[in-house]
Amino acid sequence: MEILCIGNELLIGKTLNTNAHWLAKRATSLGINVKRITIVGDYVEEIVAAVKEALQRRPQFIITTGGLGPTFDDKTLEGLAKALDQKLAVNKKALEMIIKKYEAYFGRKMRKRELTPARAKMATLPKGAKPLFNPAGTAPGVLINVKGTRLAALPGVPPEMEAIFEEYLAPMLKKAAGKTAFFERSIHVNGIVESVLAPLIDKAMRDNPHVYVKSHVYTKAKPESEGKRPGIELHLSTTATNAEIAEKQLEKTEHRLISLVRESGGKTDAEKL
Amino acid sequence: MEILCIGNELLIGKTLNTNAHWLAKRATSLGINVKRITIVGDYVEEIVAAVKEALQRRPQFIITTGGLGPTFDDKTLEGLAKALDQKLAVNKKALEMIIKKYEAYFGRKMRKRELTPARAKMATLPKGAKPLFNPAGTAPGVLINVKGTRLAALPGVPPEMEAIFEEYLAPMLKKAAGKTAFFERSIHVNGIVESVLAPLIDKAMRDNPHVYVKSHVYTKAKPESEGKRPGIELHLSTTATNAEIAEKQLEKTEHRLISLVRESGGKTDAEKL
Repeated sequence: MEILCIGNELLIGKTLNTNAHWLAKRATSLGINVKRITIVGDYVEEIVAAVKEALQRRPQFIITTGGLGPTFDDKTLEGLAKALDQKLAVNKKALEMIIKKYEAYFGRKMRKRELTPARAKMATLPKGAKPLFNPAGTAPGVLINVKGTRLAALPGVPPEMEAIFEEYLAPMLKKAAGKTAFFERSIHVNGIVESVLAPLIDKAMRDNPHVYVKSHVYTKAKPESEGKRPGIELHLSTTATNAEIAEKQLEKTEHRLISLVRESGGKTDAEKL
Repeated sequence: MEILCIGNELLIGKTLNTNAHWLAKRATSLGINVKRITIVGDYVEEIVAAVKEALQRRPQFIITTGGLGPTFDDKTLEGLAKALDQKLAVNKKALEMIIKKYEAYFGRKMRKRELTPARAKMATLPKGAKPLFNPAGTAPGVLINVKGTRLAALPGVPPEMEAIFEEYLAPMLKKAAGKTAFFERSIHVNGIVESVLAPLIDKAMRDNPHVYVKSHVYTKAKPESEGKRPGIELHLSTTATNAEIAEKQLEKTEHRLISLVRESGGKTDAEKL
């Protein structure tokens, strides 16, 4: 799977990209492997390029965030249409969704002149696209099948993005993952530098290639460095179809690492051994 | 400029990408335009592909984060060498930096056998690369000139990344930007939906094309949507070489927007008018 986030606010450092983080975490927890995240600005040509490049890598899923609203800088639908060489047209179902939202807001029937270009824009989808109802906002999400790839466009407002993902995409991802799931655990070690850990990690991974071990130096209150005895997290993960076997694999590597770290004079937070 | 973040932890949603956010904000504040951010995992081929693609777009700068440490999964230098078709070799200056770090840590001279492969790895750079001293950790950063692009690789540990950026890259970016700087301000509006704002933003931008206006629906404590009278931030920005003129441009558009919003029945937080 790939994630494509669209929005100048991400490129000027105004907004922290919690959407990519949330999507990556959720997809991983559903057993789907996220291979790349791309962030581009609100420019049609940038969106077109990023979508085309992602499609060429043939992921099972592409999820985009942002650019679905009523303002001029919301250019995702235009970008998708261009990238897929499809015409844009008002989608009846999407229009119904939007009209209902405004009628609920006004508390009365919508007048024809109230269907402004800005509002109709949110229902103007690439041909063949399916709108996804937005329970937390107005602009619908969009789902398009492009050969082997399912491309979903979600709004950038986090609760709207999350709501549409949970309703429509989570079940789809879960089904695609089948029994495959992601399992992880962490050990925290201390009193050992990363360069001493490196060959120990190599050993543990040679002994059990099913488990991927990655070290993360963590800095708490103030900047700490390898030279200052920082804390290091060893993150163990594996993808498997059987939870019991996966947990046993993780446990095996965890025990191995704990012994190796202790032999080298390090301390761990584990008392399980 | 482009940013390339390397690390599985970002793709599984374990780590929130504060590095990209920090770099984007700093580069923007220095007057540099960030056009794309890419995140890939700890795989040489993924790094090679992302670096080659970025170079083809010919940005003035590419800054990578992550993958410079001593463990097996630190693959940025290998990826850079492959992408640039350069050999990897121990860089004398980088090696000196690393040895000094360990000697400070040990409090004595380093023995030959203590220069383990894991430690030498951090000094094994693509030919032609220049090491950048890491004041907050061990692994040096790396700077490589590739035709018109300056490619800098920084560590993934935030205080290390930030320290090397400030020391070596900030002055370089500032020089490249010249007098160009980024100016911004925000207005918060309420009691008006985004679809009503859309044509007002169009109007304000037609009147003053120097200022870019982007609306951001903000959701506070609980999910709010367009249909529920949420707050909306209007973010005004411009890039200019003269601060006084830039501030005047922003002020002009701010006043225009405030009038337009009030005429449409919306409220603003501005009392400047």
